Amino acid sequence: MNKNVAVILSGCGVYDGAEIHESVITLLRLDQRGAKVQCFAPNVAQLHVVDHYSGDEMDETRNVLVESARIARGKIKDVRELHVADFDALIMPGGFGVAKNLSDFAISGANCTVQPDVLSATQAFVKAGKPVGLMCIAPALATNIFGSGVICTIGNDHDTAAALVQMGAQHHECEVSEIVEDAERKLVTTPAYMVAQSISEAASGINKLVDRVLELSHPA
Amino acid sequence: MNKNVAVILSGCGVYDGAEIHESVITLLRLDQRGAKVQCFAPNVAQLHVVDHYSGDEMDETRNVLVESARIARGKIKDVRELHVADFDALIMPGGFGVAKNLSDFAISGANCTVQPDVLSATQAFVKAGKPVGLMCIAPALATNIFGSGVICTIGNDHDTAAALVQMGAQHHECEVSEIVEDAERKLVTTPAYMVAQSISEAASGINKLVDRVLELSHPA
Repeated sequence: MNKNVAVILSGCGVYDGAEIHESVITLLRLDQRGAKVQCFAPNVAQLHVVDHYSGDEMDETRNVLVESARIARGKIKDVRELHVADFDALIMPGGFGVAKNLSDFAISGANCTVQPDVLSATQAFVKAGKPVGLMCIAPALATNIFGSGVICTIGNDHDTAAALVQMGAQHHECEVSEIVEDAERKLVTTPAYMVAQSISEAASGINKLVDRVLELSHPA
Repeated sequence: MNKNVAVILSGCGVYDGAEIHESVITLLRLDQRGAKVQCFAPNVAQLHVVDHYSGDEMDETRNVLVESARIARGKIKDVRELHVADFDALIMPGGFGVAKNLSDFAISGANCTVQPDVLSATQAFVKAGKPVGLMCIAPALATNIFGSGVICTIGNDHDTAAALVQMGAQHHECEVSEIVEDAERKLVTTPAYMVAQSISEAASGINKLVDRVLELSHPA
């Protein structure tokens, strides 16, 4: 197949970074389908650090690129080094890191902005007509990336869906095992852990998203 | 199936904790096979913290239980709370955390000792005749847990294999997609990232290990 896919991570851990299961399932499926993967993350401080055992905020600072490197086994680059010409598609797993580190959606909701390096990198795929996959909470960035009218899903969370609609998205409810596709914009979304009750439920939709994103991409 | 499986993690990140891909693939396969999973980790400080982007040691301290909680999405317990009667099997993913946090194998090699809470928990499965799966570098703990004569694999790394033999293990070389079984001791091992060149290679052996450990366990 020889497709080249960029994956943008947002840290390492569901409550303050990239959702680890979603990220690894994405990397596994891409590799199983023969795609070459390069991970990226912004070289910025995390919004905060959450103790995933207690749920409390910790008095620490961590860097999004450095922590994302844990998921990528060190093979990761600053998102500023993401050149769209080198890739056939882009996928962004979820986790609160998307709403806290890649954007300020967790704080500003419908008024959110996207981290400039991430916005620039993702919009380059849109301009190039290359497919993008966003899972879990990542579709919260869809209107910032694609503009008003974009079709996507956040699952069935009414408050989050309302924020997306307020931003100009067309929200479609979606089961955990399914995907929503905006054919015109080549955007594929799936709810993953916005809905999933188990890791295999999350995998069911993520695998479909990865497969569809690869189908939509032109051969390298 | 209704099997209950305990998974012992050693942090979050290949260079100072649990190998994230191995851990997630284990959790995914167990869930896909219908097993119920509970993650555990020792409530101790990590040996050190490694910047997975640069490879350098960081001037930080992190706790093994707290960092392991990232992989478990918060659903994790102190390994002191692991009661063997509640479980049908035990699996330990790899990563340097096994050799740095669950034991001192990274420093002491063949003279290593296992963290007391982890040793107590794992030996309880041996005494109960319940199957144990160890992957990647985790078989370095096999002689401490099972005693001399235990059959296992570390892949094909000659120095590490020599240390295991020095400790009293019978080492069998093994391909990444295969498992080695000590039928008498109900121990299943696979090399995973000791050998794997890709995440799907790692998954091939891990999936076999999980399936075999479940087969060896009695119904709950």
